Amino acid sequence: MKDNLKDQFKEKGKQTVEILSIGTEILLGNIINTNSRWIAERLSELGLNHFRQTSIGDNLTRIREIIQECSLRCNLLIITGGLGPTPDDLTVEAIAKAFDQDLIEKEYLWDQMLEKLTNKITNKNNSSLRKQCMFPKNAEIMNNPRGTAPGMIWQPTKNFTIMTFPGVPSEMKEMWNQTASKYIKNNFSESNIFHSNTVKFCGISESSLSESIDDMLSSKNPTVAPYANLGEVKLRITAKAKSISKAQEIIDPVKYKLKHKFPKQLFGENDETLASVIVDELKKRKQTIVFAESCTGGLLSSTLTAVPGSSEVFKGGIIAYSNEIKNTLLNVSMDQIEKHGAVSEEVARSMAIGAKKHLKSTWAISISGIAGPKGGTQEKPVGLIHFAIAGPDKTLIFKKMFNSIRTRREIQRLSVNECLNNLRLILLSKKN
Amino acid sequence: MKDNLKDQFKEKGKQTVEILSIGTEILLGNIINTNSRWIAERLSELGLNHFRQTSIGDNLTRIREIIQECSLRCNLLIITGGLGPTPDDLTVEAIAKAFDQDLIEKEYLWDQMLEKLTNKITNKNNSSLRKQCMFPKNAEIMNNPRGTAPGMIWQPTKNFTIMTFPGVPSEMKEMWNQTASKYIKNNFSESNIFHSNTVKFCGISESSLSESIDDMLSSKNPTVAPYANLGEVKLRITAKAKSISKAQEIIDPVKYKLKHKFPKQLFGENDETLASVIVDELKKRKQTIVFAESCTGGLLSSTLTAVPGSSEVFKGGIIAYSNEIKNTLLNVSMDQIEKHGAVSEEVARSMAIGAKKHLKSTWAISISGIAGPKGGTQEKPVGLIHFAIAGPDKTLIFKKMFNSIRTRREIQRLSVNECLNNLRLILLSKKN
Repeated sequence: MKDNLKDQFKEKGKQTVEILSIGTEILLGNIINTNSRWIAERLSELGLNHFRQTSIGDNLTRIREIIQECSLRCNLLIITGGLGPTPDDLTVEAIAKAFDQDLIEKEYLWDQMLEKLTNKITNKNNSSLRKQCMFPKNAEIMNNPRGTAPGMIWQPTKNFTIMTFPGVPSEMKEMWNQTASKYIKNNFSESNIFHSNTVKFCGISESSLSESIDDMLSSKNPTVAPYANLGEVKLRITAKAKSISKAQEIIDPVKYKLKHKFPKQLFGENDETLASVIVDELKKRKQTIVFAESCTGGLLSSTLTAVPGSSEVFKGGIIAYSNEIKNTLLNVSMDQIEKHGAVSEEVARSMAIGAKKHLKSTWAISISGIAGPKGGTQEKPVGLIHFAIAGPDKTLIFKKMFNSIRTRREIQRLSVNECLNNLRLILLSKKN
Repeated sequence: MKDNLKDQFKEKGKQTVEILSIGTEILLGNIINTNSRWIAERLSELGLNHFRQTSIGDNLTRIREIIQECSLRCNLLIITGGLGPTPDDLTVEAIAKAFDQDLIEKEYLWDQMLEKLTNKITNKNNSSLRKQCMFPKNAEIMNNPRGTAPGMIWQPTKNFTIMTFPGVPSEMKEMWNQTASKYIKNNFSESNIFHSNTVKFCGISESSLSESIDDMLSSKNPTVAPYANLGEVKLRITAKAKSISKAQEIIDPVKYKLKHKFPKQLFGENDETLASVIVDELKKRKQTIVFAESCTGGLLSSTLTAVPGSSEVFKGGIIAYSNEIKNTLLNVSMDQIEKHGAVSEEVARSMAIGAKKHLKSTWAISISGIAGPKGGTQEKPVGLIHFAIAGPDKTLIFKKMFNSIRTRREIQRLSVNECLNNLRLILLSKKN
């Protein structure tokens, strides 16, 4: 099978890359491998698709073996981790063993290292740090401006290069930006880069969206890939081209088509959120908004105020968790609460109207429901949420029944999404 | 080399596990692979060290090949991702191809799936979701209580079992907890298990904590590992033993020591949060709390109301983003706001007192500050936050200057932590 792999990957004339993360802490689940994601993103920007990421523990034999495997499969192997001074840092030794080479001390590195250290080393010759100066004879050294362990660039066999980085993210990133990026670009990058735009949808499921754009999903350039989050679906449109502006020219027609096909569901791009889109829209109209929240307990306000500049449109809110506060601050009558219950369209309507009036705004949204895990009844189960949006002309009421297997937090989040999306649709249908 | 691997791993009588994550979005660096870390942690708790984690893209041939590789190397392969309805979801097809098997539709799954869907499917027979009912003939189905795509447990060859999970973390975790964990424990776990407790600290840095417990950090059983989050530090204490109760006996003395060494900073364990600790404490005292938030815009309320049962102690809150609302709802005089500015200890004090009085509670917390990125001045820069806690006897005011390189959201989160921790310390020093 190895030979198959060799045929498949290496003989096509296309440069291929793999990422190898070394560290038992990854296999134990003690840390999350953020390095691989960061490097993957950089490779993608350089137009280098890589086909595989592997994580492996601090074990000499297993590291050696996987490096041998990779040497048959790819042209460039990016390794992070295992460059430190402790006995379980085995990366460089394993690399040398994989190609039957010895390690040689690069003495000038030791002098550089001593200069970097703020704490005096008492026993220079026996310092464990000295290990970090050992490299295969022909390896090129990559300076590590933020730490003691240097990296290397080494080509042990034809068409196979290894680059090593420390596992500490800040050191790895600095070395990448200062040295590695340029080296990879000059030696491995083809003339093309990858560039992506993300478009975001609300009010349509991933499967419905995918079914109605299956022509796009099978397109090769740009590629279009769907992802689902809680309450929203995204499409990532990625183009391969000579430059970012050329890539954007490939992406734009697809975005244009999507905007026309889903005028209501497509709400934004890239860093935009439902909340930021609403803040922008209200800013344009010079309108203000307030909230009256019950079961979401501040999450709606918190979502909107996470947007920088939201203070221009958001005046404030009332979190009316108790019926008493619904009555005193939002003017919901106790009669109404007793007759219909706090979770009812009548109370939701009164809350929104009360908030709009008391806090003097163009718009008010209210939410009252049962987020769980307790508090549900047969008639009003966990997941039942009533909403009202009071606007300049009228008050819209609506309700939603979220699946009760959802956690409390998920029901709160979906409720926030639901009312923000409804407000967005109202704004969309209303010129000012 | 494959045969070497086979010798090395499979013939030793030790059960070995690998994790395979499938999804081009991982290779493009679009998402971070949190699933592998979570599963790695669970495997470690079950006493199953695994030797390798791999991520690979949505490519039929490459998925098939790596599954064949893994079948020679390990006894249990945990796969996440690629179970969805879209054309790039290829996991099950690739698994079947790896062992020359056909896929067969499990019809009862389709009926279950239709029941789960709240939106009507217009064209039942052509729905892309139908694909999710196709499995190898002898595969055992793992129910997915939170989504439509079921997983499977399948043993295609002797001593090799595959388990599949969706890539959506919440679905994967629920399936793991409900079904997979028990199955793996019964079929793959050896006599020793790993068991962990996490203890959580606030008001001490990771480095100070680590320096004062370096004896514990070098202990072998239990191991103690520090992690830092925004505004809190955790220690994970992990013991290896024959049973959970034996492991707990190893962990307890360490926990006891820590509690006595850090009586003020150690605030909770495992799933506890600052907010849940406060909710529990107020419940015990039958006391209530309200909030008056300015720059945190609802995040304080939202953090407390994320705790199930918080409605017993939380009456509500006022998000006074505008000065007008500070005046009308919290009774802060316009004179005071003009004289000292909205971000001042005087206004913070008045906000807390106003909230406590208006909303009739035992405790009230207020926050007023500059979360940025704009709005800072030389005198009152971004990151300056004033707090007040009004209690049964008196009102405490304090301020904090967070580093202005923090993002808006980080400053909001740190502010919430700061006042919750201060309230916790007040409660700690006060019997009732």
